[in-house]
Amino acid sequence: MNFYSKKDLQFQLFENHKVLELTNYQYFKDHTTETFQMVLEAADKIANTSLRPLLVEMDRNDPQLVDGKIKVHKGMRKIVRQFGEDGWINATFSYEEGGQQLPNTLHMATGFIFQAANYSASVYPFLTTGAANLIRTFGSRELMEKFTPDMYSGKWQGTMALTEPDAGSSLSDITTTAFPTEKEGVYKIKGQKIYISCGDHDACENVIHLMLARIKGAPAGVKGISLFVVPQKRVEDGKSNDVLTEGIYHKMGYKGAPIAHLMIGSHDGCEGYLVGEANKGLAYMFQMMNEARVGVGMNAAAIGTAAYYASLSYAKERPQGRKIGEKDPSKPQIPIIQHADVKRMLLFQKSITEGALSLLLYCCKLGDIVHAASGKEKEDATLLLDLLTPIAKSYPSEMGCLSTSAAVQILGGAGYTTDFPVEQYYREARIHPIHEGTTGIHGLDLLGRKVPMKEGKALQLFGREIAITIFHAREINSLSAFAEKLEKYLGKAQQTTQYLLSKATDKTDEFLADATLYLEYIGILTIAWQWLKQGMTAQEQLEKGPSEQEFYQGKIMCLRYFFEYELVKMDALGKRLLSTDMPTLEMKEDWF
Amino acid sequence: MNFYSKKDLQFQLFENHKVLELTNYQYFKDHTTETFQMVLEAADKIANTSLRPLLVEMDRNDPQLVDGKIKVHKGMRKIVRQFGEDGWINATFSYEEGGQQLPNTLHMATGFIFQAANYSASVYPFLTTGAANLIRTFGSRELMEKFTPDMYSGKWQGTMALTEPDAGSSLSDITTTAFPTEKEGVYKIKGQKIYISCGDHDACENVIHLMLARIKGAPAGVKGISLFVVPQKRVEDGKSNDVLTEGIYHKMGYKGAPIAHLMIGSHDGCEGYLVGEANKGLAYMFQMMNEARVGVGMNAAAIGTAAYYASLSYAKERPQGRKIGEKDPSKPQIPIIQHADVKRMLLFQKSITEGALSLLLYCCKLGDIVHAASGKEKEDATLLLDLLTPIAKSYPSEMGCLSTSAAVQILGGAGYTTDFPVEQYYREARIHPIHEGTTGIHGLDLLGRKVPMKEGKALQLFGREIAITIFHAREINSLSAFAEKLEKYLGKAQQTTQYLLSKATDKTDEFLADATLYLEYIGILTIAWQWLKQGMTAQEQLEKGPSEQEFYQGKIMCLRYFFEYELVKMDALGKRLLSTDMPTLEMKEDWF
Repeated sequence: MNFYSKKDLQFQLFENHKVLELTNYQYFKDHTTETFQMVLEAADKIANTSLRPLLVEMDRNDPQLVDGKIKVHKGMRKIVRQFGEDGWINATFSYEEGGQQLPNTLHMATGFIFQAANYSASVYPFLTTGAANLIRTFGSRELMEKFTPDMYSGKWQGTMALTEPDAGSSLSDITTTAFPTEKEGVYKIKGQKIYISCGDHDACENVIHLMLARIKGAPAGVKGISLFVVPQKRVEDGKSNDVLTEGIYHKMGYKGAPIAHLMIGSHDGCEGYLVGEANKGLAYMFQMMNEARVGVGMNAAAIGTAAYYASLSYAKERPQGRKIGEKDPSKPQIPIIQHADVKRMLLFQKSITEGALSLLLYCCKLGDIVHAASGKEKEDATLLLDLLTPIAKSYPSEMGCLSTSAAVQILGGAGYTTDFPVEQYYREARIHPIHEGTTGIHGLDLLGRKVPMKEGKALQLFGREIAITIFHAREINSLSAFAEKLEKYLGKAQQTTQYLLSKATDKTDEFLADATLYLEYIGILTIAWQWLKQGMTAQEQLEKGPSEQEFYQGKIMCLRYFFEYELVKMDALGKRLLSTDMPTLEMKEDWF
Repeated sequence: MNFYSKKDLQFQLFENHKVLELTNYQYFKDHTTETFQMVLEAADKIANTSLRPLLVEMDRNDPQLVDGKIKVHKGMRKIVRQFGEDGWINATFSYEEGGQQLPNTLHMATGFIFQAANYSASVYPFLTTGAANLIRTFGSRELMEKFTPDMYSGKWQGTMALTEPDAGSSLSDITTTAFPTEKEGVYKIKGQKIYISCGDHDACENVIHLMLARIKGAPAGVKGISLFVVPQKRVEDGKSNDVLTEGIYHKMGYKGAPIAHLMIGSHDGCEGYLVGEANKGLAYMFQMMNEARVGVGMNAAAIGTAAYYASLSYAKERPQGRKIGEKDPSKPQIPIIQHADVKRMLLFQKSITEGALSLLLYCCKLGDIVHAASGKEKEDATLLLDLLTPIAKSYPSEMGCLSTSAAVQILGGAGYTTDFPVEQYYREARIHPIHEGTTGIHGLDLLGRKVPMKEGKALQLFGREIAITIFHAREINSLSAFAEKLEKYLGKAQQTTQYLLSKATDKTDEFLADATLYLEYIGILTIAWQWLKQGMTAQEQLEKGPSEQEFYQGKIMCLRYFFEYELVKMDALGKRLLSTDMPTLEMKEDWF
């Protein structure tokens, strides 16, 4: 059974987002269609041969804490090593670091394949890449040489250690403390961290935590947070660095990845290494956050995609019921894919997952441009990516829950049993609106920070990009009606945004009360834009001739579906956002 | 931790739905406020002392098939016996059958308490009641005397055995066959049944299946289906009746209730007893279906309620973040219930679960009227209940998935772990849009069958009931704006329905293509109506004086929430329902 569509990934990368354009930049110049295809094929192979076979096993046998050490599925050791040896962990880094200077867009596209195959397994190397990236970007050459080679090889696990019992969404409240020592850049660390993904396990030989802590005496709040490299074992002698696993979290889904509760320096024996300058830790972390957040959106789209193909394959094979109006019970039953309501649920999933993938790869390409370009091009891409990040994280995550739910529904009773993978996808999808910032946090980020920043410049760029798509789509006969519809919704969204911004200074509570709804509202607009873009690309291909007509017809029909069934949801959200009645502000705690 | 609100249940029963009115009917005349309160208190006690303590254990240790017998949690034996001995299973039946002539409304209200405490455990006695009810309503006195006493005592389990591998949503395709024997009314049964809830387990001594099968030579389709009593063991000698457990389904949630795959008569040794007349089985089953479907809605509302109270209690205790605009990190964090977005998610849950409960108890009361009244009163109640049943089943079920999801979201990372019950509620809620007819089936039932039946008479009654509420609400100053809003939406819904009906004869495919959306659309209208009713009741109580002001203020605020955030969704759905573009009909299988 397919868990993703090679054809759609090709379409997104090469036709819709024209990733080959990236090879015009110096950093990516050695790449060609062939190197990109090789990478995608290699990913497909690992996904099918190494990751996929463990999907169910890893769910049914989740990691356990045994004598202070987390034991994960025994197959993970081979997988993390394979990711290291085949160069996946540092693929995007420079040649001099042993990397391949691969565009992040391609790296994320391969991530999509891995995540669709087995989300839990894909998390391990992904986290190591993120942690290593922090060290190489902000740390000294010494730290880089000390830690990154064994992370790249897959021998060591990397993590992001942020959350504490009293500091989840509110990172400014972390209390883990770093005490200076005689050695420069070396600190004694004391504290605890919770919900640390891959924070401890036996598939790697060491775990390298990129940890937020406060240097003793640092200012309160976000301005006093520093970033440290804190290895589980000391690199010099392999002895314990006093990072102890206090507990493991058992979870509803993505059970194959261990989540640890860590006690740091309980015996005064934990050394950490300052990354970059003191008190800049949160800023460093946030610079990496964009990628991680787009990454979470990608996870959600990937799981949704796997669920979509599982339900599509079932719908084609499962006979049940007859056409409406056909009353003759002696006629054979028809495959359920012929029922309009099942097609609706399939189109819903297709529109969510392919719309999300399109947006995500667009964001990845912006990230590559930020990295490889300079001047105004870089500046604009940075702004646009900043604005799109909360959307690219949240739309796929929130809608991924509904999309996997539709997959379960298509299978009916079978979908609720463990005989089919859709119930697992449904459980796994539910983490994404939570981790890397809850949807509520991203709503505040979008409306409270990204929209007003630089006097609304990012929002203007976003509007301009959509207007460009509308302009071109209007020229195409079969798409002009969609272009006009999108233009109307864009206009309404701009008015609604202005209305909300008018409350930003003196009615801050009202301004932000429905930030989550605003995020959903702009999310729908954004995905509608991506569908219009996909429709244009598909129309272009259709006009070229008869090859793969079905695929492109499917794209056009899905664009129609999205505009008919999803885009209209903006009407309801817009009405609410323009209302002056504020029950969520007036509601009192005692009234619940 | 509370898993439901006694106060709200009192409000719904006695103030909002005035259940005491039922004692005016002959059948219920011996009941009083006191007997009703005693029943509710007894239910609360069993729920807290017997059901609740097993909630998590039953989830973590799900039933297993061992040597052909399903083993369930050992605590279930005591629970089913207690339900029997305390008279819960036959509480609604007549005195002469040993029952208490309790209104179903009260019985369902106690069911709500049990389901909120431990859904899996609540299923066992609920199924026995349903099965016994079929025997006593349609079967002979002989069958009744043979089977029901040990069902009432909780010694024997009852089931509904409908689904087969090729007949799930399409019941007309069942193939289980009944062969006449020399004994009148006794048949040899052969076939298989899947997904049979409580189809086999070791907490009871026998399982009595109410099974659909075709008598050899019967007409094809629904007109050839008969209903049989098929015991697992023969009543005469306790020997096997050749109903063998072929398999058990492991499920995502409500794991404590066993679901069996049964082989019937594989060794030619299965005897079944015809219930009522031949070929009327589906009609009998459907007469009971209304109650079962309202029951599923109640399950969903109950699980949603338990999740709501779990997240409410967490939100009051969990400090995280500060008020918007408060930048001073030395100030203490505030409980998350003070954040507007958290209040929004709590109001969402409150509006769904209390709105659903209000509708469900209204339906139960209609059911009691159907049972106890006669003439036009009975006729109208029957029609209205028929129309409301797909809504009462589906709105709580579909929205229950989103409502429990909001509970998970409020807990954040903690909500995704097994340390809190909300992830279990999330998994358990997901079954309800599937069993007792999928949401798609109920959409077709509502728009294709219930709306057009008797020339739209049920729909007219429904419109009239809403109009009466609007008429009275308009007289109340603080509620008149809501009354006017609802009137507008009611008018739009009537127009939309007329538009759809205009396609019923010559464009049947278009007419029914979006039946699921229509069901959602009318569902929102129905719950808005229930909220306006609750608002009126609350306003009345508020005017009486100072007692429990908070509770009633909460009701009014939740009415405001529903009209602001939920009712507006009808705008988007209505736009879609009036559209002439039909992508789900035009989409081809090859285009996916």
